[in-house]
Amino acid sequence: MGCSSALAQLERVRKQTERLCEPLETEDYCIQPMVDASPPKWHLAHTTWFFETFVLKQAVPKYKAFHPAYEYLFNSYYEGVGTRHPRPERGLLSRPLVSEVYEYREHVDDALRQLLRTSPEDEWVRRIELGVHHEQQHQELLVTDLKCNLGRNPIRPVYLEKTHDQRRKSADRTAFINDGGEMVNIGAELDQNPFCFDNELPRHAVWLAPYEIADRLVTNGEYLEFISDGGYETVSLWLSDGWAEKITRDWRAPEYWFQQDGQWFEYTLHGVAPVDADIPVCHVSYYEADAYARWANARLPTEFEWEATSQSTKNLERGTFADDANFHPQPQSQTFSGDCWEWTSSSYAPYPGYQPLEGTLGEYNGKFMANQYVLRGGSCATPLSHYRNSYRNFFYSKDRWQFTGIRLGRNLDV
Amino acid sequence: MGCSSALAQLERVRKQTERLCEPLETEDYCIQPMVDASPPKWHLAHTTWFFETFVLKQAVPKYKAFHPAYEYLFNSYYEGVGTRHPRPERGLLSRPLVSEVYEYREHVDDALRQLLRTSPEDEWVRRIELGVHHEQQHQELLVTDLKCNLGRNPIRPVYLEKTHDQRRKSADRTAFINDGGEMVNIGAELDQNPFCFDNELPRHAVWLAPYEIADRLVTNGEYLEFISDGGYETVSLWLSDGWAEKITRDWRAPEYWFQQDGQWFEYTLHGVAPVDADIPVCHVSYYEADAYARWANARLPTEFEWEATSQSTKNLERGTFADDANFHPQPQSQTFSGDCWEWTSSSYAPYPGYQPLEGTLGEYNGKFMANQYVLRGGSCATPLSHYRNSYRNFFYSKDRWQFTGIRLGRNLDV
Amino acid sequence: MGCSSALAQLERVRKQTERLCEPLETEDYCIQPMVDASPPKWHLAHTTWFFETFVLKQAVPKYKAFHPAYEYLFNSYYEGVGTRHPRPERGLLSRPLVSEVYEYREHVDDALRQLLRTSPEDEWVRRIELGVHHEQQHQELLVTDLKCNLGRNPIRPVYLEKTHDQRRKSADRTAFINDGGEMVNIGAELDQNPFCFDNELPRHAVWLAPYEIADRLVTNGEYLEFISDGGYETVSLWLSDGWAEKITRDWRAPEYWFQQDGQWFEYTLHGVAPVDADIPVCHVSYYEADAYARWANARLPTEFEWEATSQSTKNLERGTFADDANFHPQPQSQTFSGDCWEWTSSSYAPYPGYQPLEGTLGEYNGKFMANQYVLRGGSCATPLSHYRNSYRNFFYSKDRWQFTGIRLGRNLDV
Amino acid sequence: MGCSSALAQLERVRKQTERLCEPLETEDYCIQPMVDASPPKWHLAHTTWFFETFVLKQAVPKYKAFHPAYEYLFNSYYEGVGTRHPRPERGLLSRPLVSEVYEYREHVDDALRQLLRTSPEDEWVRRIELGVHHEQQHQELLVTDLKCNLGRNPIRPVYLEKTHDQRRKSADRTAFINDGGEMVNIGAELDQNPFCFDNELPRHAVWLAPYEIADRLVTNGEYLEFISDGGYETVSLWLSDGWAEKITRDWRAPEYWFQQDGQWFEYTLHGVAPVDADIPVCHVSYYEADAYARWANARLPTEFEWEATSQSTKNLERGTFADDANFHPQPQSQTFSGDCWEWTSSSYAPYPGYQPLEGTLGEYNGKFMANQYVLRGGSCATPLSHYRNSYRNFFYSKDRWQFTGIRLGRNLDV
Repeated sequence: MGCSSALAQLERVRKQTERLCEPLETEDYCIQPMVDASPPKWHLAHTTWFFETFVLKQAVPKYKAFHPAYEYLFNSYYEGVGTRHPRPERGLLSRPLVSEVYEYREHVDDALRQLLRTSPEDEWVRRIELGVHHEQQHQELLVTDLKCNLGRNPIRPVYLEKTHDQRRKSADRTAFINDGGEMVNIGAELDQNPFCFDNELPRHAVWLAPYEIADRLVTNGEYLEFISDGGYETVSLWLSDGWAEKITRDWRAPEYWFQQDGQWFEYTLHGVAPVDADIPVCHVSYYEADAYARWANARLPTEFEWEATSQSTKNLERGTFADDANFHPQPQSQTFSGDCWEWTSSSYAPYPGYQPLEGTLGEYNGKFMANQYVLRGGSCATPLSHYRNSYRNFFYSKDRWQFTGIRLGRNLDV
Repeated sequence: MGCSSALAQLERVRKQTERLCEPLETEDYCIQPMVDASPPKWHLAHTTWFFETFVLKQAVPKYKAFHPAYEYLFNSYYEGVGTRHPRPERGLLSRPLVSEVYEYREHVDDALRQLLRTSPEDEWVRRIELGVHHEQQHQELLVTDLKCNLGRNPIRPVYLEKTHDQRRKSADRTAFINDGGEMVNIGAELDQNPFCFDNELPRHAVWLAPYEIADRLVTNGEYLEFISDGGYETVSLWLSDGWAEKITRDWRAPEYWFQQDGQWFEYTLHGVAPVDADIPVCHVSYYEADAYARWANARLPTEFEWEATSQSTKNLERGTFADDANFHPQPQSQTFSGDCWEWTSSSYAPYPGYQPLEGTLGEYNGKFMANQYVLRGGSCATPLSHYRNSYRNFFYSKDRWQFTGIRLGRNLDV
Repeated sequence: MGCSSALAQLERVRKQTERLCEPLETEDYCIQPMVDASPPKWHLAHTTWFFETFVLKQAVPKYKAFHPAYEYLFNSYYEGVGTRHPRPERGLLSRPLVSEVYEYREHVDDALRQLLRTSPEDEWVRRIELGVHHEQQHQELLVTDLKCNLGRNPIRPVYLEKTHDQRRKSADRTAFINDGGEMVNIGAELDQNPFCFDNELPRHAVWLAPYEIADRLVTNGEYLEFISDGGYETVSLWLSDGWAEKITRDWRAPEYWFQQDGQWFEYTLHGVAPVDADIPVCHVSYYEADAYARWANARLPTEFEWEATSQSTKNLERGTFADDANFHPQPQSQTFSGDCWEWTSSSYAPYPGYQPLEGTLGEYNGKFMANQYVLRGGSCATPLSHYRNSYRNFFYSKDRWQFTGIRLGRNLDV
Repeated sequence: MGCSSALAQLERVRKQTERLCEPLETEDYCIQPMVDASPPKWHLAHTTWFFETFVLKQAVPKYKAFHPAYEYLFNSYYEGVGTRHPRPERGLLSRPLVSEVYEYREHVDDALRQLLRTSPEDEWVRRIELGVHHEQQHQELLVTDLKCNLGRNPIRPVYLEKTHDQRRKSADRTAFINDGGEMVNIGAELDQNPFCFDNELPRHAVWLAPYEIADRLVTNGEYLEFISDGGYETVSLWLSDGWAEKITRDWRAPEYWFQQDGQWFEYTLHGVAPVDADIPVCHVSYYEADAYARWANARLPTEFEWEATSQSTKNLERGTFADDANFHPQPQSQTFSGDCWEWTSSSYAPYPGYQPLEGTLGEYNGKFMANQYVLRGGSCATPLSHYRNSYRNFFYSKDRWQFTGIRLGRNLDV
């Protein structure tokens, strides 16, 4: 990427993060509704810290850090950088003020602009590009964490009014696409993508047995049948760890759903709405996705099956991304991206020959390659320009606060 | 109390709560730094809820509640009123906004003013008076909870600049006052106090064996000797439960103290300052107070000894209260009130013949009469007009975030 | 106490501990059913360790410890002796074997016999006497811990067959004894008791306001009325901490009670039996005792009221003690001791002028004088020769596995 | 399998379980040293319960259960069978007695013998065969759980004296075997194995990129270099979850290792011994195995790589199995089985087309296919006749109490 396009991209993405915060009140910036979900203020500051730590402190000899405590306060998990504020206490910080965090952003943006103008070496351009994609990841987290913040408040505030009603309809029934029975190449194609994360590499061959895979996500309507059929009470449908989690957390429906006078409602970022049978089910854990699939005489696809079919069906229309400013899944028909991150049955593991980045930035992805599952496809909270077909998202099997949904797969006997 | 004086008192106290919040930024209002410590916003709303629930909803036939969710959100512990928002989640509420809470206060204040003007029945005047004292209790909690909020922030923000330096000096050595060997009357004297809580009644006779009691609080200087002498490492000085707590929490000094380059500092609401040997030690648990006393060949006084001597030594000068706007203990000399709440060895229990208030208000004090210890004397965060000689404060033996200090007592052989 | 009577007492008590274990299978010796309840094997060894540590290692110059690891394994809580095996892991030790523990007892008994024959100095005789009373305390704990062990086993094994049926009947109604309105002396009378613990001293004067106190314990029948009347669902009857505990542990009846086909049963050391309305209710926490008393328009007595009346009513018949080998409360009529330890409203605190024993033995009682409540009267598991009128037992307000019951008190207006 | 060979196998395996218990004292049978590790008594009873539940109660019309409570007490995790005794409380049961459990075994064995003699239908023979393999799995668990029991006891008792010293030596350096770059078939070959578990099926094709894999396990000597080189303090070597676990549990060496006077010792079932540099390192978690591999510029092999190479190198000598009665790893040279279960980087997941057994027995394997890692190779506690090349063991990444070791793999550039 050239230096001027890097600058343009930087300006656009940094601005976009702040645009996402425009509807917020000062109070909303400070809340950490659970350990996993950070306050908006923290996201604004941490993405800035990333540029300060990995670009400015390396590249600018006399760079003056904005505040000595921020290195400690806004480090997320980079052990190589030093100690850091405990994650569960991110919501206990009234200071720095929101306004100070915005000043921090301005301070760092100015320094980045100057760097790109004066010493646009490849290494710094590459790191700025990484920082931009890092910030886009946090844009999605900012939205999901904010939904958790507002959605758990008994007052259930509205983040954004729904401005338009882009009613498509989901296909009535899922069609299944036949695939597999061949070697496929999996992983980012470096010549076709301007950027990818290290975990998408190297591109490598995988043998896929014949399978079929649904052409759209499971809908709320279909999931309601699972609930009505006693899905949450039928232990034989569940993984052992999943059943234990269900009992502990008393799950009876997806996150943000609640029942009133016999009807199901859900909290959305537009406020409370009746559960719409036509849109993809969202905010389910891996355990629920897996149990649903078993109930439907299907299974979750592997990430390799997912990527292979998604490559071979490029003419399908795209689903909803953050750029559509819905922040809620929409009805689908023959869609292979957007709306919800899709749980795959693949454990998050390195591709054969995987190499993490050098130095502390090597902590970005590699050290999380255990105990998590890969999700594919992007969601209604993912920036479109951040997304690629080879993108590997990953969460723990119990996690539900992301926009996570279900696509079915099935074995094909040959 | 007459109706107009009730109104004046109401206006004064309600205004004072808001004055305490004047130095706050919006962000400061929302933080709950630990389960015990509520956000300022919550205190502002809960004290208002108290008037709404126990006065307006009872007294004003067509009273319209400000917001339907507030009954749930701002109930502290009154089971008789219904379910309530979980205490550990008070800091997870970005809404209502701070500005909305101030509107809530205005709404309720207006209704109270109108009630006092139009139906000033004794019962409502009495309940308003209770609400005023309730609010004064929360003024103290607001200050102590805020200190916890700001003091745990690595940035350690200043609440108030120190404006004046009223240097008294503590007496070099504690003098002990001989007392006891007689029957004394303990509890509020109804004809001498405009108001008291139910837990100060009934006034009753107690026999006190001869004892002596210090004429001032233990100073930081004296407590530093205890630390230097290995007080925190000498298990034989400690109660069994106290030692376990010390190990778990890794106590090595009072709350808010920390060591840097061999010197002790403490966080105060004026910011960080070196530990001043001359002022009373503060923010110690019952366990530390007890261990210190044992180390000093003394013991903690009982609440009865404390009250008896404080009655018989009325010419002593008063210590620092919230009205002095120091919010930090000051040097003492022959003082029997203010600066720090003083741990007594008395378990918090009902006086013989104790009667809680009727109805839900009976939950105010009575149900806490187990497992806690009585503290006496008021602190630098206590409003002076809220304080009485017979006042019984109570906290758990492990609690340190209140302004809690140590007065020594000793047995006298006869 | 003379040397030969000390020897006789030692032999008798040591033998009695082992007699209590006669009905046990090897497997029963090893179980720790909860953190508070130690395995029989541990009690057998720890009481032996007490003699070894506080007598033999001090008194016998060349005493050879039975096993080097036992000092660590069987220390209960004496910090002065050194580190110790963690209490929650007492049930994780298959070794030493039961037979080895009996050999340990024999080894130590032999050494004690020889000591008493050869160097019967007063100090050692006094310490042996303390060890004997210590062992008697553990006899009671052995029985209560064993009941917990067997009672939580779904098979509910029988410890002892009921051999005889000594049917008395409880008085139909509780009579109340008027008392108080005077100074009384509380604490052990040294000239009348061969032995007492340090916590019963010094004898001292207390003023008691007029009160009345029940002449027998609350019965199961009376407690069943409390249950039927919704006692466990009526929050206004409960202390705040008690209600929280009730919710957490889902208490709906005393420990060891369960309902089957609408009838209440309880596990006893004779096996399962229908709840007998005529015998004293047992295995209730302080919280339940306090809630029951409030429901009955009464209160718990203080330990001073209890001791004063128990002294002035010496002609009442005694209740059941361990010597009666029932190990279950029996019907009562005008009884002021035995059957159940009785919760008093008195926090466990030192008497004015209290002096713990010198050295490590000072840890015996003093360091527990916080956060617990005093129980009086002895139980069906207490050795009669261990009991005195001035005896102060103490447990936490949540504890239920001891034989704990309820005696009512009331204020008397004058 | 024919009926008579089923009977012979049954007799042999049932007898072998009891033989493993011969060195035990009654007390040893009852201990559950941690939640994961069950008491020997429980293993003896649960394996019996398995036959009773899945064979006798189905096959024998008038079968009389040995004891009504055992269905509840000895169910491990079969939800289809009903409720069960909580796993963490398996060590709280003094009853049934050890002798009663042996009677239970005899009762069930008699009934099985009679069944095989009188109604040897295929279905029952198959289920008995499954029960036999189930019991062999528990033989291994019995040994590992017993090691945990004895090894955590400060007395560190010996299970078995070491009777012989079969000193081989490990190869000085690991040799790496080149493999991969081809399609391989993975999974049990039904025609070559008398038995396999459902999770080894179906046999299916997998593409393997070129790799190399060590011809023996990592030794203690090699692992000591990792420790000396600061492996346990170098965060960049560790997975994020692994580092958190290390901190929480304060890991500094494999389980059962401890340092004395600068030398490393380990507890073995023969008692304490100096760490022998020549034998395979054992009792490491997945996290430690992964960190060691990273330190050694290698990685863990996948289960597919492991199985492929183990098939193609059948002339290697076998390592130590339970039949060798060492119960401790032995030096290795060109060995591909035995001594230690080997962590692979493969998440435990169903093979494509996996079908669990019908009915409640379907809970045997399938419901655990999440969040765990596959281990291959068998250990010194695995019965040889239970082992197959295609065997998939699985544990959580934090688990260390099994005999778990490390084999290295590496990528091969082509």
